[in-house]
Amino acid sequence: MAVIGFIGLGNMGGPMAANLVKAGHRVVGFDLSTAAIDAAEAAGVTIGESPAAIAAAAEVVVTMLPGGKHVLGVYDGDTGIVAVARPGTLLIDCSTIDVDSARKAHALAAAKGAVSLDAPVSGGVGGAAAGTLTFMAGGEAEAFERARPILEAMGKKIVHCGGPGAGQAAKICNNMILGISMIGVCEAFVLAEKLGLSHQALFDVSSTSSGQCWSLTSYCPVPGPVPTSPANRDYQPGFAAALMLKDLKLAQEAAQSAGAPTPLGAAAAQLYAMMNAQGEGGTDFSGIIRMLRGEG
Amino acid sequence: MAVIGFIGLGNMGGPMAANLVKAGHRVVGFDLSTAAIDAAEAAGVTIGESPAAIAAAAEVVVTMLPGGKHVLGVYDGDTGIVAVARPGTLLIDCSTIDVDSARKAHALAAAKGAVSLDAPVSGGVGGAAAGTLTFMAGGEAEAFERARPILEAMGKKIVHCGGPGAGQAAKICNNMILGISMIGVCEAFVLAEKLGLSHQALFDVSSTSSGQCWSLTSYCPVPGPVPTSPANRDYQPGFAAALMLKDLKLAQEAAQSAGAPTPLGAAAAQLYAMMNAQGEGGTDFSGIIRMLRGEG
Repeated sequence: MAVIGFIGLGNMGGPMAANLVKAGHRVVGFDLSTAAIDAAEAAGVTIGESPAAIAAAAEVVVTMLPGGKHVLGVYDGDTGIVAVARPGTLLIDCSTIDVDSARKAHALAAAKGAVSLDAPVSGGVGGAAAGTLTFMAGGEAEAFERARPILEAMGKKIVHCGGPGAGQAAKICNNMILGISMIGVCEAFVLAEKLGLSHQALFDVSSTSSGQCWSLTSYCPVPGPVPTSPANRDYQPGFAAALMLKDLKLAQEAAQSAGAPTPLGAAAAQLYAMMNAQGEGGTDFSGIIRMLRGEG
Repeated sequence: MAVIGFIGLGNMGGPMAANLVKAGHRVVGFDLSTAAIDAAEAAGVTIGESPAAIAAAAEVVVTMLPGGKHVLGVYDGDTGIVAVARPGTLLIDCSTIDVDSARKAHALAAAKGAVSLDAPVSGGVGGAAAGTLTFMAGGEAEAFERARPILEAMGKKIVHCGGPGAGQAAKICNNMILGISMIGVCEAFVLAEKLGLSHQALFDVSSTSSGQCWSLTSYCPVPGPVPTSPANRDYQPGFAAALMLKDLKLAQEAAQSAGAPTPLGAAAAQLYAMMNAQGEGGTDFSGIIRMLRGEG
């Protein structure tokens, strides 16, 4: 069992750190929020003085932060965790951030002899609490193999996607497909409504044919066909529209930076920006069907 | 076994009529093309004088025509099949046409005491030849039950989607999801390429998570992950981009007529229009990935 530093004990990081404690690790955590600190302490996390103090004493440092600037802020500089970490320390960044920042974090780590992995997750707050997250990991094979038992304490599926940044790339590519296909399914249901075709009839046809997709058959945006989907509980998330917007913006940032045309990805980002602007960022992302209907 | 009139013996109608012959029906067909007539005769179809002459003597009349105007042209008027058909004749239109025209055809039939069904298909030329088409049917229950054994001779899945026009509605809603999700998957693969994420890594992540869709897991637009997909044979169709464009245009026509906003459906139609304009209408619709890459 390892001494693990954990920077960022929020809605996701808090329960993830708690699962590391449950697995028998000694976890020393840090957060700026008193509420997050209190909850983590109650779950058995020791609270450290600062990210640097934690990193200096840890074998592994996990970060779970809102964006690329936060991760680089914690990694970089004289008091950054990269500068103070002992050689060979394993740095795992589980934040969902832009690919360019993820690669910068890897480069900083490599320059100081640390071993690093980008490992963003899917599965949301529920998956973090239940320890059933999916990790999409990017980095060298050594980093991945060392990280695997740590990640397995927090998730049920760990995929090595490639070199530095590949975890972030896989997450935004997947979630771009998800955002696009969800809007496509919602458009089809709204069109079906206007044409007098029942939800169940469209579901029966498409779920068994070429329109089949996870957005339809696992997360159906209308109540009825898939009883577990958020549509059956007034679109309580689930996966909030604001988080889908974040991922679509990251995809757009990467696409623009890399020179990849993504016409539907761009449109999907704009549509989720509209949903967010309407004050519906906290609604499940499948609730975009209400905006298409003009239900506001 | 019935006497079945069959109007439209082209790439789809020809093999469908041949399967009705194989099932033991007496099939009397009509087409404007000599080549289509010759092929149908070789398959055991008797060729009639005119649609009217065929309809006057048939218990069932199947139409398989390019568009709504062709179907209404054959149905309507003094020498139309509706005027000459005996009361109780079953009219099955298997063409993929606009919902408004399909409903007009039903109304014409109903006014003359004929029983009618819109029953567009999916499965393409291969499915027509193999008798494995899917039929999406709209019309009254009586029409559906009478049509079922006829359709079963030409397909393997027969779905009753609702009242008049529901079959066309289901087909265009499904194919709109398909067109959108295919472009979304293609955009994700192109973005992955630019980010250095391998095709297989993205496939492995998305095929087992929230980006899963038929366009990815049954019809993958890059070679490798799904050996049967057209990407492995230089994008030979399969399902030609020109036909996807036809279905997306029908969806747009219905959406505009019914007042349903379909932002991604509209964008998908425009993107397939671009592919078509580039002379790639005969390429499989998954080949739109080449346009996104700028491969022309």
